[in-house]
Amino acid sequence: MLDKLLPNSKICILSGAVQNLQLKRELWKVEPSTTAKNCKNLIREIVEGLNLQPNPEKPVIALSLGDPTIYGNLKPSAETTKAVLDVLYEGLCNGYAPSVGYEAARAAVAEYLSYDGAVYQSTDIVLCSGCSSSLDICIAALADASRGQNILIPRPGFAIYRTLAESMGVEPRYYNLNPENHWEADLEHLEAQIDQKTAAVILNNPSNPCGSNYSEEHLRNFLEVARRHRLPVIADEIYERLVYPGKKFISTAALSSEVPILVCGGLAKRFLVPGWRLGWIAVHDPIGAFEHIRKSLASLSQRTIGSNTLIQGAIPAILQNTPQSFHDGLAKTLALHADIAFERFSQIRGLTPFRPEGAMYMVVEISLRHFPKFTSGLDFAVQMMREESVFCLPGECFQIPGFLRIVLTVPLQSLEEACDRIEEFGHRHYVE
Amino acid sequence: MLDKLLPNSKICILSGAVQNLQLKRELWKVEPSTTAKNCKNLIREIVEGLNLQPNPEKPVIALSLGDPTIYGNLKPSAETTKAVLDVLYEGLCNGYAPSVGYEAARAAVAEYLSYDGAVYQSTDIVLCSGCSSSLDICIAALADASRGQNILIPRPGFAIYRTLAESMGVEPRYYNLNPENHWEADLEHLEAQIDQKTAAVILNNPSNPCGSNYSEEHLRNFLEVARRHRLPVIADEIYERLVYPGKKFISTAALSSEVPILVCGGLAKRFLVPGWRLGWIAVHDPIGAFEHIRKSLASLSQRTIGSNTLIQGAIPAILQNTPQSFHDGLAKTLALHADIAFERFSQIRGLTPFRPEGAMYMVVEISLRHFPKFTSGLDFAVQMMREESVFCLPGECFQIPGFLRIVLTVPLQSLEEACDRIEEFGHRHYVE
Repeated sequence: MLDKLLPNSKICILSGAVQNLQLKRELWKVEPSTTAKNCKNLIREIVEGLNLQPNPEKPVIALSLGDPTIYGNLKPSAETTKAVLDVLYEGLCNGYAPSVGYEAARAAVAEYLSYDGAVYQSTDIVLCSGCSSSLDICIAALADASRGQNILIPRPGFAIYRTLAESMGVEPRYYNLNPENHWEADLEHLEAQIDQKTAAVILNNPSNPCGSNYSEEHLRNFLEVARRHRLPVIADEIYERLVYPGKKFISTAALSSEVPILVCGGLAKRFLVPGWRLGWIAVHDPIGAFEHIRKSLASLSQRTIGSNTLIQGAIPAILQNTPQSFHDGLAKTLALHADIAFERFSQIRGLTPFRPEGAMYMVVEISLRHFPKFTSGLDFAVQMMREESVFCLPGECFQIPGFLRIVLTVPLQSLEEACDRIEEFGHRHYVE
Repeated sequence: MLDKLLPNSKICILSGAVQNLQLKRELWKVEPSTTAKNCKNLIREIVEGLNLQPNPEKPVIALSLGDPTIYGNLKPSAETTKAVLDVLYEGLCNGYAPSVGYEAARAAVAEYLSYDGAVYQSTDIVLCSGCSSSLDICIAALADASRGQNILIPRPGFAIYRTLAESMGVEPRYYNLNPENHWEADLEHLEAQIDQKTAAVILNNPSNPCGSNYSEEHLRNFLEVARRHRLPVIADEIYERLVYPGKKFISTAALSSEVPILVCGGLAKRFLVPGWRLGWIAVHDPIGAFEHIRKSLASLSQRTIGSNTLIQGAIPAILQNTPQSFHDGLAKTLALHADIAFERFSQIRGLTPFRPEGAMYMVVEISLRHFPKFTSGLDFAVQMMREESVFCLPGECFQIPGFLRIVLTVPLQSLEEACDRIEEFGHRHYVE
């Protein structure tokens, strides 16, 4: 085509330029580092590989998004917003904070986390840019890729543990949670994973995706394994105190008189502001095992100089002024949604929901033998999207194939509509 | 003492408990990772080692703090603050943003950076939690510790380059800047540092600590070295357009038709909100050499899920509404302070100031042979604090012993008072 539109001489120049550009490109193909290549988002990789197509005749309902704010039904408290407004008006929190955070903010977090026997001072707190950053710093401090170390992570579990570990060259090694037993850790399996190169174990309670809330007994048993093997614990408690009415959350740190624990948390979930990126690490170290680790946490926080100072400045007011009724209201809403979803899914043949007690999720098992048309849970999820425009993350995203994760933060009407559609879908494909 | 206060039996129990605790401690001494051990803050280490004691009879003037907001004389524009207030009132930016940032924010940054021939699309922009985080991600994407790679960093230069590189296990290798020639890079020296394992070169313009603003010719010559060696450039332009009246800032990216460049910047300095932690990476890649690196930047941004969403939501308004008069005012103030400081230091025998053209700093050389009482620039700085309660960071913090860095953002009255005291100090100790 081109030779009919352009005189020959120009073609020569053009192809010369194209060749030259290609040559340059070959010479200049910059290869990413091993760290970058190993930094993978499992959920994104799986979801992007699914070729998701909703049914154009039905509006999409996403039961897949772990962001409680996006549907507009769950909002931060007025006190939370006002606290940041006040800081902005005052104009005193625009400069650099210490990389571990303002002293007043650290003190407020220490006070907020000191309950039921857990005790923190401001010096035990490191503020981070979101809880992901807290986890990043904890794993980086404890696990040594250059010595071939590994960390233990729960299966099913949140994908970021693996993303972070692998990007550092640290081996992520899974221990099983038991669905038949409130998703408690299988402690025998956990213990079998431990070797000389195990640097730490991650405990996630309440759990994403399970919605479980561990008993004091289970936490004590978990800690006993850690104690026996001298294994520090990274306790991901981002859903701290986000449990349903009548349930009680127990922080792992409140039970440990010996095992050193880095407790990770933040404002994201309980205060409904995940985008604000305010996380923390709380150091619980009853026997002084973390003397050097404390310094490491501070050093590592200097790489990116901490979190947003407007939010840091607002933390004391956010934590102190948000009324208990706000937390109670959120827990009640989630419990209501969980009850409805659990009852509805219990009625769908071939699907088995696991009743959650906290966090924002419910896990459902698919009896694939009753759905012979689908080769896997992935396939089930893709077809459900295609026919019913309802999408849930398949268990593969959390290392448990054959399951689905249901997000409970969607508005009630959407949740019920989604249940209707899933019921129809299940009914349509169920085979005795 | 104890044996007089307690019966013997209790002493036995007590010492048993103490021994037991000590035994546990020994068993439980958790060692930090190599990454954590290598993560050092050079400035903090040097300053903490100085045993700084001000003169109790004179109030301290810190010419050492690179935070323009702390003295209260330099404030963000009303438009900047209002933009965040509006986002807070609207309540739509509390949830997670994509880890590379909101599309609208990326588009606004792309537009903001597209001038004088540099052209960006929103897809070229990755938002980060401050410019330190931008640099962290760029170095992590380009330099491979597991292959023994190195990166080239300017001397004198900002300490974080070294902190980041060393914590990743990447070798920081210095190239000299020439004080006699406006702190331009010594390109011969630069070229001599390059080997097969050099992954990238960092260019900082305008420079901290030098206050230099490179000419088009020097930037072109710098790029030619990079082109010849197929070396990607990380351009730290956090002081972008922060140059004195009559000077012109040129972004490296505007001059490169071949060399791929990651331009790092953010709101911190030009908009006077360093605590807000809003940085960016702008990918300039004229020949497609960064195809894989673009993906890596996105992957690496997922480790900590980006920056604060309130600020992200406000970026379009901040960048579009802040009037040129605000930027002009800041530049004028800095130029005035620089003029005064330069003139004053020029009058002090034994000290040689280097006239800055941008950023917020001025470098001063100490002729130590005229101050025989002091063994080093460090010693000079410590004694100046002890006698005059004026502190400047010694050049050791920037890898140039025998120099001082003067921060120009302090209020004029403090700056003049500091100059008076430094003059007296110099006069007192100068020996012909």
